[in-house]
Amino acid sequence: MLSFMIKVGINGYGTIGRRIAHAVSLQPDMTVIGIVKTKPDYISRIASNTFNIFINDLKNKEDFNNRGIKVKGTLEDLAGDVDIMIDSTPEGVGEKNKQLYDENNIKAIFQGGEKSTVGESSFNAYSNFNESVNKRFVRVVSCNTTGLARTLFPIYNRFGIKHVDATLIRRATDPNDSKKGPINSIEPSLKIPSHHAPDLKTVINGINIDTVAIKVPTTLMHVHVVKAQLKEKASREEVVEEWNKYHRVLRVYGKEGLSSTAQIMDAAREMQSNRSDLYEIALWDESVSLSGDTLSYIQAVHQESDVIPENVDAIRAMFNLEDKEKSIEMTDKSLGIGRRNI
Amino acid sequence: MLSFMIKVGINGYGTIGRRIAHAVSLQPDMTVIGIVKTKPDYISRIASNTFNIFINDLKNKEDFNNRGIKVKGTLEDLAGDVDIMIDSTPEGVGEKNKQLYDENNIKAIFQGGEKSTVGESSFNAYSNFNESVNKRFVRVVSCNTTGLARTLFPIYNRFGIKHVDATLIRRATDPNDSKKGPINSIEPSLKIPSHHAPDLKTVINGINIDTVAIKVPTTLMHVHVVKAQLKEKASREEVVEEWNKYHRVLRVYGKEGLSSTAQIMDAAREMQSNRSDLYEIALWDESVSLSGDTLSYIQAVHQESDVIPENVDAIRAMFNLEDKEKSIEMTDKSLGIGRRNI
Repeated sequence: MLSFMIKVGINGYGTIGRRIAHAVSLQPDMTVIGIVKTKPDYISRIASNTFNIFINDLKNKEDFNNRGIKVKGTLEDLAGDVDIMIDSTPEGVGEKNKQLYDENNIKAIFQGGEKSTVGESSFNAYSNFNESVNKRFVRVVSCNTTGLARTLFPIYNRFGIKHVDATLIRRATDPNDSKKGPINSIEPSLKIPSHHAPDLKTVINGINIDTVAIKVPTTLMHVHVVKAQLKEKASREEVVEEWNKYHRVLRVYGKEGLSSTAQIMDAAREMQSNRSDLYEIALWDESVSLSGDTLSYIQAVHQESDVIPENVDAIRAMFNLEDKEKSIEMTDKSLGIGRRNI
Repeated sequence: MLSFMIKVGINGYGTIGRRIAHAVSLQPDMTVIGIVKTKPDYISRIASNTFNIFINDLKNKEDFNNRGIKVKGTLEDLAGDVDIMIDSTPEGVGEKNKQLYDENNIKAIFQGGEKSTVGESSFNAYSNFNESVNKRFVRVVSCNTTGLARTLFPIYNRFGIKHVDATLIRRATDPNDSKKGPINSIEPSLKIPSHHAPDLKTVINGINIDTVAIKVPTTLMHVHVVKAQLKEKASREEVVEEWNKYHRVLRVYGKEGLSSTAQIMDAAREMQSNRSDLYEIALWDESVSLSGDTLSYIQAVHQESDVIPENVDAIRAMFNLEDKEKSIEMTDKSLGIGRRNI
């Protein structure tokens, strides 16, 4: 380990935490010191082949040892030995952990499930990287908000946006969960706008957006139907040309057989990506159209992985390691973003 | 390419074909000359980064070229340039292709969707490797039959089996398919026994088995509930010890959180296996019990990948490249089977 490497701890090794651990381990300027797990389950056991395991409560050490999992120490031990903790614990728990990070005088990144007030800033690499430079506590917005920011920021930045209406058709739960539902109903979030609209404003200051969220029985991806009224005149070609400058926006084609989230995730598998993930937002080319000043499009968001590159970039911003463009370039290269050809 | 390498063609690059192509490409004694695709879809385009693409009909060449996919030739060209064709075309199509392979004087492997009469023998590596030695046309049995053969053969071989009753709870379709159902009903196969019972007899000669198959709305895996009446007295420990000798049978533990097919497939993802696949049959340790002379257990079968090692071994048998034990060892090593620790 080189001395200038940022020492990273991962508290919570669920859907997001395990992917951040992998992504951080690929970076030349940061290293994973350890991960924190609460249970000695199969995830802990597999993780222990790669990472040092820390636990919340020393009382559980024997349970871990009995499963052949060596315990390196406690969450407190890890907090004392890192420069930054990535908190990827369940929704609401991160807020409670903040004091520990504060006491240990380390930085911390929280995930989108936490209230926006947990951080000094909310983060999306494209839309507001610089707002998190040298900050101590930062929150990376959720998978859905990241998906909206990725495709709306290029348009907002280039043409201006008067107003956005977005309908979010959300996956019910993640593929490794067999407890949550619904399995056979469509469940609207009755709060309108859903929390995604105010959340997007934390990373695109001043954007005017309404969102409606509907949960459906699938585990693969979210799908967004977006209508954006532009300020400046734009053609379909100009819009597409703008998106093409951003590698984390990936245009996909129904005419090539990518007609649903099933085939998009299959394409990610075919590309041999880590855990069969898709870091990019998949934007269906055929759905892009302009009617007067209104741009319409449909996109799919891989909820398990789209925020992973953002977490890596947030670390670089918080330690002022690289500027926005260079950080994004390094992250994209390490994760294969932009080299892919789905 | 070394001169003693077996030249392999893959006709049909769907769920099974693409995985066989990958597995064959990892072997030291065989090489993939090309794959045959019918449509210029995303699967063709991604595959063209790795393999030579052949097509069924030269009329479609321009469609492929228009999508940036270089076409190397036709199915007939490929048949003229290989030692063996792996036919992984849709059910029933393999039979029709047999004449072409015959005319080109090459060997061929067919998949479990074909009638057993398409081959001179049916194949499972553990139960009847030697029956396919030097054969020209061989059929690898289906994913479900392979799953039954993997766990029943060790027991049959060591203790003898009077009779088996197996209930197969089948996945409805594969993860990349968004057309087939059912999505919200349970569909029994009304033919009892289902075709799996006679199919198992093609690889375990003389086994006495009844099977019932029920389709449920999931894409991840099949699950089998098996009851086997043993000829010789056996203890749970002896049964488990026997299975432990076979790396393609993987014991998994509910108490480690592997309580459904969702977590088993998640564990495969965590192990960074190719396409997040699981080649082994996952056998739930807690489900194994003996009541009198009757052994009961529950297992899960990854329908997309469990037959892949068998296809590789079948090639070795047909060219008499290695004996059974050595072939299985080579295949397992190349695919990470037995090194895993889910």
